[in-house]
Amino acid sequence: MTVTYSSKVANATFFGFHRLLLKWKGSIYKLLYREFIVFATLYTAISVLYRFFLTGSQKRFFEKLSIYCDKYAEQIPVTFVLGFYVTLVVNRWWNQFVNLPWPDRLMFLISSCVQGRDEYGRLIRRTLMRYVNLTSLLIFRSVSTAVYKRFPTMDHVVGAGFMTRYERKIFDDLKSPHLKYWVPFVWFGNLASKARKEGRIRDSVDLQTLLNEMNKYRSWCSLLFGYDWVGIPLVYTQVVTLAVYTFFFACLIGRQFLDTDQGYQGHDLDLYIPIFTLLQFFFYAGWLKVAEQLINPFGEDDDDFETNWCIDRNLQVSLLAVDEMHMNLPRMEKDIYWN
Amino acid sequence: MTVTYSSKVANATFFGFHRLLLKWKGSIYKLLYREFIVFATLYTAISVLYRFFLTGSQKRFFEKLSIYCDKYAEQIPVTFVLGFYVTLVVNRWWNQFVNLPWPDRLMFLISSCVQGRDEYGRLIRRTLMRYVNLTSLLIFRSVSTAVYKRFPTMDHVVGAGFMTRYERKIFDDLKSPHLKYWVPFVWFGNLASKARKEGRIRDSVDLQTLLNEMNKYRSWCSLLFGYDWVGIPLVYTQVVTLAVYTFFFACLIGRQFLDTDQGYQGHDLDLYIPIFTLLQFFFYAGWLKVAEQLINPFGEDDDDFETNWCIDRNLQVSLLAVDEMHMNLPRMEKDIYWN
Amino acid sequence: MTVTYSSKVANATFFGFHRLLLKWKGSIYKLLYREFIVFATLYTAISVLYRFFLTGSQKRFFEKLSIYCDKYAEQIPVTFVLGFYVTLVVNRWWNQFVNLPWPDRLMFLISSCVQGRDEYGRLIRRTLMRYVNLTSLLIFRSVSTAVYKRFPTMDHVVGAGFMTRYERKIFDDLKSPHLKYWVPFVWFGNLASKARKEGRIRDSVDLQTLLNEMNKYRSWCSLLFGYDWVGIPLVYTQVVTLAVYTFFFACLIGRQFLDTDQGYQGHDLDLYIPIFTLLQFFFYAGWLKVAEQLINPFGEDDDDFETNWCIDRNLQVSLLAVDEMHMNLPRMEKDIYWN
Amino acid sequence: MTVTYSSKVANATFFGFHRLLLKWKGSIYKLLYREFIVFATLYTAISVLYRFFLTGSQKRFFEKLSIYCDKYAEQIPVTFVLGFYVTLVVNRWWNQFVNLPWPDRLMFLISSCVQGRDEYGRLIRRTLMRYVNLTSLLIFRSVSTAVYKRFPTMDHVVGAGFMTRYERKIFDDLKSPHLKYWVPFVWFGNLASKARKEGRIRDSVDLQTLLNEMNKYRSWCSLLFGYDWVGIPLVYTQVVTLAVYTFFFACLIGRQFLDTDQGYQGHDLDLYIPIFTLLQFFFYAGWLKVAEQLINPFGEDDDDFETNWCIDRNLQVSLLAVDEMHMNLPRMEKDIYWN
Amino acid sequence: MTVTYSSKVANATFFGFHRLLLKWKGSIYKLLYREFIVFATLYTAISVLYRFFLTGSQKRFFEKLSIYCDKYAEQIPVTFVLGFYVTLVVNRWWNQFVNLPWPDRLMFLISSCVQGRDEYGRLIRRTLMRYVNLTSLLIFRSVSTAVYKRFPTMDHVVGAGFMTRYERKIFDDLKSPHLKYWVPFVWFGNLASKARKEGRIRDSVDLQTLLNEMNKYRSWCSLLFGYDWVGIPLVYTQVVTLAVYTFFFACLIGRQFLDTDQGYQGHDLDLYIPIFTLLQFFFYAGWLKVAEQLINPFGEDDDDFETNWCIDRNLQVSLLAVDEMHMNLPRMEKDIYWN
Repeated sequence: MTVTYSSKVANATFFGFHRLLLKWKGSIYKLLYREFIVFATLYTAISVLYRFFLTGSQKRFFEKLSIYCDKYAEQIPVTFVLGFYVTLVVNRWWNQFVNLPWPDRLMFLISSCVQGRDEYGRLIRRTLMRYVNLTSLLIFRSVSTAVYKRFPTMDHVVGAGFMTRYERKIFDDLKSPHLKYWVPFVWFGNLASKARKEGRIRDSVDLQTLLNEMNKYRSWCSLLFGYDWVGIPLVYTQVVTLAVYTFFFACLIGRQFLDTDQGYQGHDLDLYIPIFTLLQFFFYAGWLKVAEQLINPFGEDDDDFETNWCIDRNLQVSLLAVDEMHMNLPRMEKDIYWN
Repeated sequence: MTVTYSSKVANATFFGFHRLLLKWKGSIYKLLYREFIVFATLYTAISVLYRFFLTGSQKRFFEKLSIYCDKYAEQIPVTFVLGFYVTLVVNRWWNQFVNLPWPDRLMFLISSCVQGRDEYGRLIRRTLMRYVNLTSLLIFRSVSTAVYKRFPTMDHVVGAGFMTRYERKIFDDLKSPHLKYWVPFVWFGNLASKARKEGRIRDSVDLQTLLNEMNKYRSWCSLLFGYDWVGIPLVYTQVVTLAVYTFFFACLIGRQFLDTDQGYQGHDLDLYIPIFTLLQFFFYAGWLKVAEQLINPFGEDDDDFETNWCIDRNLQVSLLAVDEMHMNLPRMEKDIYWN
Repeated sequence: MTVTYSSKVANATFFGFHRLLLKWKGSIYKLLYREFIVFATLYTAISVLYRFFLTGSQKRFFEKLSIYCDKYAEQIPVTFVLGFYVTLVVNRWWNQFVNLPWPDRLMFLISSCVQGRDEYGRLIRRTLMRYVNLTSLLIFRSVSTAVYKRFPTMDHVVGAGFMTRYERKIFDDLKSPHLKYWVPFVWFGNLASKARKEGRIRDSVDLQTLLNEMNKYRSWCSLLFGYDWVGIPLVYTQVVTLAVYTFFFACLIGRQFLDTDQGYQGHDLDLYIPIFTLLQFFFYAGWLKVAEQLINPFGEDDDDFETNWCIDRNLQVSLLAVDEMHMNLPRMEKDIYWN
Repeated sequence: MTVTYSSKVANATFFGFHRLLLKWKGSIYKLLYREFIVFATLYTAISVLYRFFLTGSQKRFFEKLSIYCDKYAEQIPVTFVLGFYVTLVVNRWWNQFVNLPWPDRLMFLISSCVQGRDEYGRLIRRTLMRYVNLTSLLIFRSVSTAVYKRFPTMDHVVGAGFMTRYERKIFDDLKSPHLKYWVPFVWFGNLASKARKEGRIRDSVDLQTLLNEMNKYRSWCSLLFGYDWVGIPLVYTQVVTLAVYTFFFACLIGRQFLDTDQGYQGHDLDLYIPIFTLLQFFFYAGWLKVAEQLINPFGEDDDDFETNWCIDRNLQVSLLAVDEMHMNLPRMEKDIYWN
Repeated sequence: MTVTYSSKVANATFFGFHRLLLKWKGSIYKLLYREFIVFATLYTAISVLYRFFLTGSQKRFFEKLSIYCDKYAEQIPVTFVLGFYVTLVVNRWWNQFVNLPWPDRLMFLISSCVQGRDEYGRLIRRTLMRYVNLTSLLIFRSVSTAVYKRFPTMDHVVGAGFMTRYERKIFDDLKSPHLKYWVPFVWFGNLASKARKEGRIRDSVDLQTLLNEMNKYRSWCSLLFGYDWVGIPLVYTQVVTLAVYTFFFACLIGRQFLDTDQGYQGHDLDLYIPIFTLLQFFFYAGWLKVAEQLINPFGEDDDDFETNWCIDRNLQVSLLAVDEMHMNLPRMEKDIYWN
């Protein structure tokens, strides 16, 4: 589920963001504590090895190696690479959110433009709405692991009421080697066209508004699918991951406290705990975790989109709007500012 | 309230921006003076401790620690992280402003396309307009703490005239576990459809233009809601905050003036007041404050959007436009350039 | 007036941009010469003070201070902060240009869709067009100091022929505590609706196209207004200004040529004129001037938008197009490629 | 074919991205192993030359040269140049993906708005759909080497059923020195207009929706063509390539391990294998490879778009939707939530 | 003419970009060789002066000056400034390309919606199309030096068949102190409206689609004009140019090889040819050349848009589409996948 904290930062107050540092859910600590333990353990192991097990000349070699690693650790452009990469990932993530398909626009139109409070009218409206929800469900099954777990087969889709048995038969009978998520939209278009012929939809203007809106919905669906299908090129992700991992590998050796008696420059203090290196670990690994979390926002991370919730909400709300609420208007009254 | 200063910088003049440095409201000083006092106090305390209370060998250790901290303080990529993060926050903030729902487009259409100067016509136009304002009010209650304080319950919404008692009853009777801010739009669509049947709206072209505009309005509303619901991932905010705080923590120790007699490189001057460190505090903490202020622009900061003002303005203006001004045209006259 | 130089750089030639360095109008020199003189004078004063008035020990202290300032001057992330900030300002500036309201789209539609070459038809077309120009004038009065100077009161607006006396009376009679720039659009919508009833506009399709276009125009207007109303947060501008000013303050002391006999590192040359520091002043102060110039493009800078010219052009051209040119078609002839 | 790995990174887990480091297809290793071998070989050759073949004074000269190269290698702004360039390339690549022409929107409209289940109706729908597919095929032949290989001549296009012989004759007869990919769209428009006259398309509203959608499709096609025609300016690509190649050239000499006995600063360790330089090679060359892969996404790289698959899918699916599925609706049934 | 090289980089191959380094047309070499010769000559002159003509003490002074210049050369933030500036220029350049006006969308609509294969029908369609082409020609004359050279006066426009003599007379008779490129669009709107009255355009839906498309075309035209009229502020371009020129000026002195016997740090090697400085010249000057080339893409550079070709293509193609191809449909046949 999404971690919402905007109400906590509504006002810029005294050290406003510090409260955010104490959250656990969706936090850097929760995401990173395992990696942090591994890193700290390795660092400690190397430190212990250096301090207690190496002979004098081995120590000298290690010290040179450490200085060498430290020098190059600073040259790795982690900040820069991460800055550009995370910006890219965040933009994609937000675009995916903005393109989540919501049926609200369609349900307003169907509720007001498909006439008839009789059973047949209700049937048309509910069926149109169901087709819309069915399409997004089929798309979500492709892109979201959480939704796929909930609807592993078409039987589950039928069982959940998104599709009737008869529809499924026709759906299965269509011969195509390709994905068939567009099928319910063809049905939608044809059903709307039929309703127009039968006078349930008044004229072409109403019909085309509906079809136009459906096409918008389809574009959202296919864009979501596109984001899943064509991700950030693997090479880019690998380059960034390599840079960060290399940096930490270099730090493991290069940021050891060396024997202060040897007089190496910048090594006249032995704190045992490399506080700034650990903090750097948090910055850089945390920044990379931002990317890891957002690169596929349809997983089950704390910050991922709640697709299963969306599916339920959309079906419930849209059937309510087109059926029960159709032409069920509150009595009009004069408002309190009348005259 | 928003701090508008554009008229002050209309022309690029001699040291044009310096005037801005002297403003208080919405300024960096007002936002930061508390943090600044804390920082300066801590710095002074450490300075006093070092100068008067530490023994010789403790001083030597502190000096080494200070140099160590200073070295790493410079390595923390605060500028870079802040640059990318603030750019992200500013973009989101501006998009939220651009998507504030204004009913003006709808009120022009309703005023010119819903016919009838009699009471029933007025009632339809006012009711349609009220539904529009009601929806944005429901959204603002979710995203803005200021609006929520003003309308803590639905009773307040009814009391302020955005909803009639009867509407509220129907609204409450709708069974849905989800947010119901979309309900007035279903009413809007159905009422418009009814008006079309009764001839108050001339034809489907007029009707669809209205519904289309309503759907635009809905998109603004839901986008605002989306920005509130799915914020910048908590991890990102934590990474940036950690980086800035760590930097200042390192500065507290690393930027102390050390005993000039010890001959440490770059430490042959004791100014007592670390003027550049304090200025850096202003840059970086100020930059972070930009983010804190903008990350939720619906709070009560000096620079936040005036949502309560918007709500009042929108209701007042839109009722005026669709009721009193409907078909109340000024007499047409020849303008002064005629022939 | 905008400084157009694109024709000078149409082709990439030998040292192509050097010609631009010699322009005066809108140039960095014109914008910066005053600040430059102040900076150079202060630098000289400090230099003279150091060379001729300080005693030996004061000189030693000044030298240490200078080295201290120089060290921190380099740490101030001016480039980075300016880079992000100027990018933001430039984007906003361009968006404001793109959203300048031009009535051309509306005048084509009014000219071709509002029928009748008689006086009444002309009156309708001219009045519609005038309302459009009136709205943008009202907006420009709010955002542009130049326009406000030209039209300080509504009397001037009436006097310039944008509004008739009768319209002004109705305008003033409207009770609203809020800005009323939207009023002419309500009139526009109602007048168009009236023209539709009277058969001057053929059908709802024509009418809605007009209203739709009017709403686009309104969006441009309100976006302009929004850019003026909600500027870049003051804190951000202050952070950047502080950073640049601090940098130059640090340079004044830190970039002095020190006594070469003292053997300070990097101080074995005394050029008297700090050529590179002066050039840096031009880069950074010039970069900041870019922001100063563009942050409010409706002032009277060399590079600001010529809003008063726009207002005149729009009124003249649009009345011409909807009146004199209405149905005044050139005789159709076969073009020279016919068959 | 596109390398999809988003399902592998659905959740941010313990060292989440490390699994990506082990992939081969589309990976940095597959793309870079040849360059890496060349680089490593050259490095080794120079190393061997320095260690075993140079005389003492030659060694001294080489050492100075190496230090000189190393100093300047660090000054080359590879990171920065690559960051800006790759961002540009990635944006263009994604825009090309988003503008891939999919006929789905058109096929829904044709299926629901072009009437008649008789043979003539089928013929109109199939022909309209074929024209759409033909246009995108003609565009793909221009921009994609893979598609061009499959359809080297117009005969292949006719043979694959995208065009009839008769159409090809008319197509060839059109005298124009310019590309003729727009021709099928003129046919589409005229055929739709004809269908409107014959009553197969009900009215102008339906017709214009179709034509509007067709124009959208054309915009995608022409934008794809534009991206191919006007690439990133050659100079920019050359600048970046030069920077990266120069950097590695400087590294070949500058990153050699020098004789530790000579006491050069930072050269007191001889590891034989320059581990960090090799890793840097992977970062920078990998980053450049991202650009190489994406600069033309219509080639045959692992990560390029599968245009041939698209062509087949689009034809098969769109004919299915407008013919077999036309008005072939599943029987409407009450869904399981009815009442 | 645009330099297209995308087919050369379709696949990411072994040292894929190196082939691009060997191109001449539109290349960095062709653009820079003159500046390079100047730079190298100056460098050599200074080098010769230093080595052979200066006396001992002058040499010492020069050496100090050189070190001083070198130190500050490194501080000039050329990379950063160029990165932000070139990104801005490239975005503007691409937006100009995307907004080039193509009449294809209009010609499809005119071909299918303006009825009548008789001479009058042809005349209307051709005249409408000519107006469209005329407008873009008028715009291109303003923004493109190449087009202006070809059509220096309105006589040339008439002579090339874009305008008839009679139209020109009316055009000239219009009294307006402002540019008149919008005039043909008023004619277009009025002619379309006339055709609607005469039944050549069926109804308002068809008419409004045409007018809407015309307005899109106008927006492209006016946006092009806007990009030409309001360029990147002169100050910004001057700042960047100054930074780059200053950098190279500093390099001329600062990157000289100094007497190795003097033992200056980093000056123990005399290579005579400053290979890395020359390469840096290529990077930075090349990067600036990218901006020079793209800042006005309507010149006659190798990489500029071929506006004259566009004008010819558009006229030829659009007349062909609306006249000869109007309702000239290929006989419909069953495609090869029928059943």
